[in-house]
Amino acid sequence: MKMNNPVDRLQKEGGSSVVPLEWDGTTLRLIDQRLLPHEEIWLEYRSGREVASAITDMVVRGAPAIGITAAFGLVLEAKEITAKDYEEFCEKWYSFADLMVRARPTAVNLRWAVNRLGRVVDSHQNDDPLFITDLLEKEAILIWQEDIDANLAMGRLGQELLPDEGGVLTHCNAGALATGGYGTALGVIRAAVSQGKRIKVFADETRPWLQGARLTAWELVRDGIPVALLVDSAAGFLMRRGEIGAVVVGADRIAANGDVANKIGTYSVAELAQANGIPFYVAAPVSTLDPDTPSGDQIPIEERPEEEVLGFRGSMVAPAGVAARNLVFDITPHHLVTAIITEKGVLKPPYGPAISGCLA
Amino acid sequence: MKMNNPVDRLQKEGGSSVVPLEWDGTTLRLIDQRLLPHEEIWLEYRSGREVASAITDMVVRGAPAIGITAAFGLVLEAKEITAKDYEEFCEKWYSFADLMVRARPTAVNLRWAVNRLGRVVDSHQNDDPLFITDLLEKEAILIWQEDIDANLAMGRLGQELLPDEGGVLTHCNAGALATGGYGTALGVIRAAVSQGKRIKVFADETRPWLQGARLTAWELVRDGIPVALLVDSAAGFLMRRGEIGAVVVGADRIAANGDVANKIGTYSVAELAQANGIPFYVAAPVSTLDPDTPSGDQIPIEERPEEEVLGFRGSMVAPAGVAARNLVFDITPHHLVTAIITEKGVLKPPYGPAISGCLA
Repeated sequence: MKMNNPVDRLQKEGGSSVVPLEWDGTTLRLIDQRLLPHEEIWLEYRSGREVASAITDMVVRGAPAIGITAAFGLVLEAKEITAKDYEEFCEKWYSFADLMVRARPTAVNLRWAVNRLGRVVDSHQNDDPLFITDLLEKEAILIWQEDIDANLAMGRLGQELLPDEGGVLTHCNAGALATGGYGTALGVIRAAVSQGKRIKVFADETRPWLQGARLTAWELVRDGIPVALLVDSAAGFLMRRGEIGAVVVGADRIAANGDVANKIGTYSVAELAQANGIPFYVAAPVSTLDPDTPSGDQIPIEERPEEEVLGFRGSMVAPAGVAARNLVFDITPHHLVTAIITEKGVLKPPYGPAISGCLA
Repeated sequence: MKMNNPVDRLQKEGGSSVVPLEWDGTTLRLIDQRLLPHEEIWLEYRSGREVASAITDMVVRGAPAIGITAAFGLVLEAKEITAKDYEEFCEKWYSFADLMVRARPTAVNLRWAVNRLGRVVDSHQNDDPLFITDLLEKEAILIWQEDIDANLAMGRLGQELLPDEGGVLTHCNAGALATGGYGTALGVIRAAVSQGKRIKVFADETRPWLQGARLTAWELVRDGIPVALLVDSAAGFLMRRGEIGAVVVGADRIAANGDVANKIGTYSVAELAQANGIPFYVAAPVSTLDPDTPSGDQIPIEERPEEEVLGFRGSMVAPAGVAARNLVFDITPHHLVTAIITEKGVLKPPYGPAISGCLA
């Protein structure tokens, strides 16, 4: 089956060639984000179960990228299933989909992508499994394409909010690598730079996985956008010194009231931005909006192994016998969010009606 | 010359055996804090210039410990000087003292210790250099002893401010290793635990040097005090979740108006504590008070090499071509400080009169 490659359009319109995945109809390739920036290793996947493990093990991370990857994992699973009829296909495929949904708990895009492919399966009752598998592949590619389109749209809408020049802070990596390409927060920054705005990015290094130091810095250097790395605890003081004019981050899930789940440290950045009178923007596609979750209090916060905090990349820093808390995400209450940039428009408070209107 | 060993008294009264330095009358020994906790290497110094380099290179760190170490460095220099008379001794010794003062710029205790030994030199005009050298050694030991006494007193006074149980956050290492022994912020925590308070310490790992992960965790594990390590960006969210009841940190310099210079990230912690209604305490000996500096705006903030931020313990993390900002300290404005715990009493706002009264 010949597919349109979503990346072609991205390169034409967005000007950045970084993508976290490739698909050729039989194999999903993921760049191993745990090894960047010093090693660029592409891993190949032909099994849905291996893709679920890759998501759990953080070969790929970033809410939209996880959703797209999961969709291709569900396609690979469908291709592997041998079933005599629709019913047997359905049973096997949904049993795997349940496993995929649990690969990581916080990002809502994972569940969203699984549900979207589930609707394809549900709406073709008693069709041939091979035909459904083809439709699932088309839907996965469409999810990828739509994500890139959404990022380009967020860039166009969001860049207007950024200052014409000066420091813009971002946390973690909400870039091309966290999405289908171009990025959410980094997409907004890329678009602003394309518009001629003289922006200098301050990138929080983002312990414990150092996505800022490894991924955000790598993307921006490749695109020639000026970037200075900070230890996470330095951002507040640079805000106070007047070196940061805006903050823009991504999101893993946005509750119905506008509370934002994102990488640990996002809440601190938002509180410090408010204390210093600096706007705090969240850039996220509508697939990140979760109208079924009333507020951040109901969003599950993943806790990962203590070892990730006690050391770095397998080498221990802390002495033996020390415990650690490794909350991976935090919740930024909606009152700290200046605006939410989506592909359907820039949402402003009160977020309850803005979000339900956006999804209507 | 037989000296009283300040550590004997510390062990009798304070119950913690950790100290960052040893002195036997001819040799200064420093535990290499860059290698802790996995290697406990004591380095030996018999020259003042080597001691100044050890301070610059962060073999020893922590404002009070730097002051004490500098004092012994000035003693070693005095022992090395060959001078035919007081005048020649003075010229050589003060030339070295100028160098020592510049070993690190932010902590005021360094200048304070140099000035204090300078007063010994000044008040013995035309005395024999050997006699003055003996007096300098006595003064250095006295500075060390007084620092330990101050820490024990801060512990007694400060522990009353801590809750009877629950989480207490600290940032960086303001412990035995940062002082003559026992610690400022960790002294307050040690005293509270001695009083039977059931405190669990949350320790920020404190990038880029990871003093929290390496030093604070090591000290507390040795003393059997429960400690959980956090990435620096997680403290705010734990405050918001109600897991932290108080914050206590040390200080490198406190201006006349109560503005506090301390390790980068302290300002963020203070702002987040205020946003969450949590008291923020600074524990520091009066030698850290700097009445000659009106406010934090006049305190020089050391910037160290970018490589410390670009990598993690000597191995590069960020890609080539990325810049970094490495501000080592920040300024916490006095309005965020609930109280300053000194050995002469607990200071409350307004800090201007409280500080000048304390020094009167």
